[in-house]
Amino acid sequence: MPNPGRLFLQIPGPTNLPERVQRAMDMALINHRGAEFAEITKKILVRLKQVFRTERGTPLIFPSSGTGATESALVNTLSPGDRVLAITIGEFSAAWSRLAKAHGYNVDVLELPWGSGIGEEAVYEKLAQDKSKTYKAVLTIHNETSTGVTTDVRAVRAALDRAKHPALLLVDTVSGLGCTDLRCDEWGVDVAVTGSQKGLLLPPGLGLLCVNEKALKAMESARSPRSYFDWAPMIEKNRAGFFPYTPVTSLMYGLDVALDMLLEEGLERVFKRHHRLAEGVRRAVAGWGMKTVALAPRDASNVITAVYLPQGYNADTLIARTEKELNLALGAGLGPLAGRAFRIGHLGWTNELETLATLGGVELGMKLLNVPFTLGSGVAAAQQWFLETHSK
Amino acid sequence: MPNPGRLFLQIPGPTNLPERVQRAMDMALINHRGAEFAEITKKILVRLKQVFRTERGTPLIFPSSGTGATESALVNTLSPGDRVLAITIGEFSAAWSRLAKAHGYNVDVLELPWGSGIGEEAVYEKLAQDKSKTYKAVLTIHNETSTGVTTDVRAVRAALDRAKHPALLLVDTVSGLGCTDLRCDEWGVDVAVTGSQKGLLLPPGLGLLCVNEKALKAMESARSPRSYFDWAPMIEKNRAGFFPYTPVTSLMYGLDVALDMLLEEGLERVFKRHHRLAEGVRRAVAGWGMKTVALAPRDASNVITAVYLPQGYNADTLIARTEKELNLALGAGLGPLAGRAFRIGHLGWTNELETLATLGGVELGMKLLNVPFTLGSGVAAAQQWFLETHSK
Amino acid sequence: MPNPGRLFLQIPGPTNLPERVQRAMDMALINHRGAEFAEITKKILVRLKQVFRTERGTPLIFPSSGTGATESALVNTLSPGDRVLAITIGEFSAAWSRLAKAHGYNVDVLELPWGSGIGEEAVYEKLAQDKSKTYKAVLTIHNETSTGVTTDVRAVRAALDRAKHPALLLVDTVSGLGCTDLRCDEWGVDVAVTGSQKGLLLPPGLGLLCVNEKALKAMESARSPRSYFDWAPMIEKNRAGFFPYTPVTSLMYGLDVALDMLLEEGLERVFKRHHRLAEGVRRAVAGWGMKTVALAPRDASNVITAVYLPQGYNADTLIARTEKELNLALGAGLGPLAGRAFRIGHLGWTNELETLATLGGVELGMKLLNVPFTLGSGVAAAQQWFLETHSK
Amino acid sequence: MPNPGRLFLQIPGPTNLPERVQRAMDMALINHRGAEFAEITKKILVRLKQVFRTERGTPLIFPSSGTGATESALVNTLSPGDRVLAITIGEFSAAWSRLAKAHGYNVDVLELPWGSGIGEEAVYEKLAQDKSKTYKAVLTIHNETSTGVTTDVRAVRAALDRAKHPALLLVDTVSGLGCTDLRCDEWGVDVAVTGSQKGLLLPPGLGLLCVNEKALKAMESARSPRSYFDWAPMIEKNRAGFFPYTPVTSLMYGLDVALDMLLEEGLERVFKRHHRLAEGVRRAVAGWGMKTVALAPRDASNVITAVYLPQGYNADTLIARTEKELNLALGAGLGPLAGRAFRIGHLGWTNELETLATLGGVELGMKLLNVPFTLGSGVAAAQQWFLETHSK
Repeated sequence: MPNPGRLFLQIPGPTNLPERVQRAMDMALINHRGAEFAEITKKILVRLKQVFRTERGTPLIFPSSGTGATESALVNTLSPGDRVLAITIGEFSAAWSRLAKAHGYNVDVLELPWGSGIGEEAVYEKLAQDKSKTYKAVLTIHNETSTGVTTDVRAVRAALDRAKHPALLLVDTVSGLGCTDLRCDEWGVDVAVTGSQKGLLLPPGLGLLCVNEKALKAMESARSPRSYFDWAPMIEKNRAGFFPYTPVTSLMYGLDVALDMLLEEGLERVFKRHHRLAEGVRRAVAGWGMKTVALAPRDASNVITAVYLPQGYNADTLIARTEKELNLALGAGLGPLAGRAFRIGHLGWTNELETLATLGGVELGMKLLNVPFTLGSGVAAAQQWFLETHSK
Repeated sequence: MPNPGRLFLQIPGPTNLPERVQRAMDMALINHRGAEFAEITKKILVRLKQVFRTERGTPLIFPSSGTGATESALVNTLSPGDRVLAITIGEFSAAWSRLAKAHGYNVDVLELPWGSGIGEEAVYEKLAQDKSKTYKAVLTIHNETSTGVTTDVRAVRAALDRAKHPALLLVDTVSGLGCTDLRCDEWGVDVAVTGSQKGLLLPPGLGLLCVNEKALKAMESARSPRSYFDWAPMIEKNRAGFFPYTPVTSLMYGLDVALDMLLEEGLERVFKRHHRLAEGVRRAVAGWGMKTVALAPRDASNVITAVYLPQGYNADTLIARTEKELNLALGAGLGPLAGRAFRIGHLGWTNELETLATLGGVELGMKLLNVPFTLGSGVAAAQQWFLETHSK
Repeated sequence: MPNPGRLFLQIPGPTNLPERVQRAMDMALINHRGAEFAEITKKILVRLKQVFRTERGTPLIFPSSGTGATESALVNTLSPGDRVLAITIGEFSAAWSRLAKAHGYNVDVLELPWGSGIGEEAVYEKLAQDKSKTYKAVLTIHNETSTGVTTDVRAVRAALDRAKHPALLLVDTVSGLGCTDLRCDEWGVDVAVTGSQKGLLLPPGLGLLCVNEKALKAMESARSPRSYFDWAPMIEKNRAGFFPYTPVTSLMYGLDVALDMLLEEGLERVFKRHHRLAEGVRRAVAGWGMKTVALAPRDASNVITAVYLPQGYNADTLIARTEKELNLALGAGLGPLAGRAFRIGHLGWTNELETLATLGGVELGMKLLNVPFTLGSGVAAAQQWFLETHSK
Repeated sequence: MPNPGRLFLQIPGPTNLPERVQRAMDMALINHRGAEFAEITKKILVRLKQVFRTERGTPLIFPSSGTGATESALVNTLSPGDRVLAITIGEFSAAWSRLAKAHGYNVDVLELPWGSGIGEEAVYEKLAQDKSKTYKAVLTIHNETSTGVTTDVRAVRAALDRAKHPALLLVDTVSGLGCTDLRCDEWGVDVAVTGSQKGLLLPPGLGLLCVNEKALKAMESARSPRSYFDWAPMIEKNRAGFFPYTPVTSLMYGLDVALDMLLEEGLERVFKRHHRLAEGVRRAVAGWGMKTVALAPRDASNVITAVYLPQGYNADTLIARTEKELNLALGAGLGPLAGRAFRIGHLGWTNELETLATLGGVELGMKLLNVPFTLGSGVAAAQQWFLETHSK
């Protein structure tokens, strides 16, 4: 028997979809090689640039998950054997470095502890050691979903500039874009990579990139074998609003509307809303007397919060019970955090009441496990913060 | 700009619809005079009987609001000038008595205070005075939405029986059916009247009745003019699964699924869930140190709770602000309660987390108005209750 | 097992819904007593006036079928015992006269043969006989769905004017509005009555009226009992965008969009499109060597065409087989036409190809019954007409 | 202004979606790492095997277009430099050979004329020449969408067997599966590749494969770089109902229902229906006195028919006009057929009436271009065929 009432899907994406986006996708398919579809594509590409905060970059849309887009970023800019520096701070940044190895690149990993952010100094040191500038690319993650940590991408760019290093800056912003600020032009992001199912308010199924002139230049000499994820035919066909192969028509309808929603609300307001809800969650965690996986407050993500349960309590049990008994889906701890931490997604088209419901549900779940804390303390702390910052 | 995130529609109906019902209604229309539609109608009528808890009664479905069904109950059983006893305890029971007057019946009103329930004694006294048994019908309400009070329908039936009064018992269960128990056969309800947009999990647009043999007998001699709401052609056409005029096809699709959902969960579980969520709300109100409009706990409704704001605070302002600023729609106080009370709907396809979100939002709203109470106290009280009664 | 592919619902309404309308209805319910809903109502009422072609009239929307609206037209303008003249030319005009009788009016019927239109002369004669001007109202039908005949409403108005008769002109345009021209102001229609499921592109569930000053004046002295269908509280509440009882929220969302669609296309173009498709159907019928129920070409409806099968062939069998075997739903012959005629609906959001599919399907069905005609002759005749009048 | 009425999307896929599938996809997202989703995945994989007609094979689902799946088939079974034989008969088979070259395989092309099928003899000869059995794989296409030709896959298998050649048989059935028979086990298809947007009744967005033991064995030694399209982690994660990265949740909901629909109708009936509708189209083409691109009747596709316009008439103009003026989307001629031929898709959840509408619309379009033929001749020929083969 299904749980009554609405599901609270509070994993770190996909999110609870806006119904406006859902209904837009639920429309009859049209000819993806016809004039009407071409218009939609062109409108999307223009607004995607705004969301990537670029004027010089080129947005690309692949029928794939975000992982496909991370592969695309590599095979279009690198040749087999190329040296790359991968900075890892958790599961998803590490996954990208493994993916790079699988494609035959020579991957040097700057492995930072789970929970930490990425400081300019550490990156600079690593780059400075590369005296002959052999790294072709630096791989970093904007928002590490496994730990709830957001990277200061400006600091990575600063390290590259300070080291006068010509490597491309490739940024995985799968869970960052549309939630927390990323400025491709201003911050010198050569390739940004994302997916549809987080800040872009859609179901999974699109892998998106934003690539700048430097990346396109690299593409010309990159010799990695590629076809499906090849940028060249995509850029060529996109000019007229088309694709080298069948695009995901229905997700394109949804993206068209989701971009409207993001830009109607305004990116600054979207980011501020994410910060405000995230801070509510962090206050709740403090109210419970518990700790986030993110070590330093300045690194804490506005997208997702990973929370340690006290020792002796199993986070996977918590997650299983809230999902089954309370219609609340939380994210599991990954890798070394498995069983020790759970993750609360607070991203997308969401608001204060959904955050309170989530926190209230987490509290019920923890009490069912006999975790020691004061019932209601987290909710009240978040409410207090929401009141302090209420501005309508 | 729309409020981000999901709306919490916590008025006393319509409710937050189950998406399974929504999608069922979003299907191509079929021929309402064809075999496929007839099958749907027949399936619906069989299960409606289960929901009305009747074996002997006949369910009827009109394209109308619940108000239309209350009119139908009168014009099919009464003749102009007939005496009826209308028991009023709030806005909606009073509205029915006014409707009866508009149709030319001689209405005697047993007016009880807003907030009180209906006791057997008061009804008995009134009936006992009618020595020549002139009342043709007694009009009562199962759940008075304006005050959050549920009538003990058994007590009204007991009064009739004790007075050996032959009057028909007509019950408005617009906001009761599918939320809180009503047993048409066992409790001797001659006509029960409801609407689609409450416990039946649908949008508004259907007025439904359940009429028993005694009511059908009365119909034969009732001389009130009627055509649209006439039972006779409806019953006649329903036999083959059809209707005397065009039915609301899409709502019928939805009703088909909604009945499945009610019966899959099981009526007893549905009622228990409503009680549990309602009690959570009542604990929250007590936690705030505030009062419900329902005077006695035994009369408090499991469907909706009307809450008095402390003097000096305007409930309409609260409602306007939560709707505009927090995406939370509450019900306004009606009649003498306007501005003094607000109403929380906790009915339909809903759960603990939605209740906590609602209470959390009410708390935020009250704080925005500087209502004195301890932030978080209501949520915590509801959580405590949910934990005590958690049974999965 | 369901029939593969799309259903062709070619009954005389409901119609194949535009998906834009369907998706608009498939949205979360909002508070029907809140500001957002009031805005929608007001926007709807303004545009409904355009569709009724009135500046002076007041549009009204009831949760009911079209039949409910025909009842509303009577009980708000008449008193029990009032004399009315009902002009009947088929099943639906006759049904209205029966409904009037059920409500206690003194109904004089001008019964014209099925298939004929309504001429000024016949109406004038009848009115002229009423020397003391006792008729309070003349009931006529704009489009008689049972025969596929459209009334020249101007002619009825002319008869009234010529007879200097003060009776109200009440027009049932349930299947006319939004398909074929009706000019409430210009043609002196005092009350026009319609339903949502025909030219208004919606599912069934709304009964609509447009009432002018003269009708409102009549309302003041009309003594028929009424409450659900009472205009006064409706007009009163509508002023602020609200309703005296719960409106059909989801159909209102759909109506909002349907009105946009009608006005974006433009009423003149909508009527022209209906005429063009209807004429295609009529050419097909001629191509088959068969006859329409409509006797004179000038009376033939642009909404629906009723077609006689040759003697010895059963139209109900045809209908049953096309629905079951070809996914084509046709309308049955009603009353004296039962079994002898079938009806093709060609109204709403529809086009040439759907008409050709329908005609092609009718041809297949007739051949399955061994009806004698040349296979393809109807389709080709319609195609020829579509080419002659192609204008894009 | 949009064209009124329903669009007839008669390109060779995507198709007019069944609304049952559409609504299934329009549901709230759930946790793709939760138990409920795992159940759906497992149910899907079991039924996909039935559709691929395999007991021994393993179905795989990638978030990608069908093109992605063709890439996946190569990189998992081959190593750079491997020799492969690609049999081309049109645009899509040629595209696969180009894709293989882009990935560094040594591609030998057996290029057959556009419009022809693939005979056992030609393939055998080619294989027989490869005395040292250097081909690692033979690439062939099940249904060539550019020409409307279906390959006799059994004949290709027979050629391999007769030549005792150990090469893998890789089959692109993007537009074949679910429309026209493919028996992976019986016909020795080592890898079959498809997409969601044709016979599987979905929007684009899934690339699917069915791989047998021989292909899995090849995988173990295949050294092509791969990660996104890597089978190994996919198979590993699928065991528990999960995926190595975020799956396209909403398309999975749709696939779940689409598989039900295919299996409820029964594959044999699905294939027979496609054959019957396709033959109707071919009769129409003959009725017009025109020619299909498919040269021999035995090779003609049951999925799509490519039709030559007479010389001097531009097929692209025809397509542009039917789409803009008649709401009929046809497929364009590709490569050498550009402007010379147009393509009619008659696949998916479709029926006789939709086919007649399509043919009727093509006829109108051709007359608008003054193409010489008898108006109605194609429709009538198709109708005649439908009648001859009517079996309900």
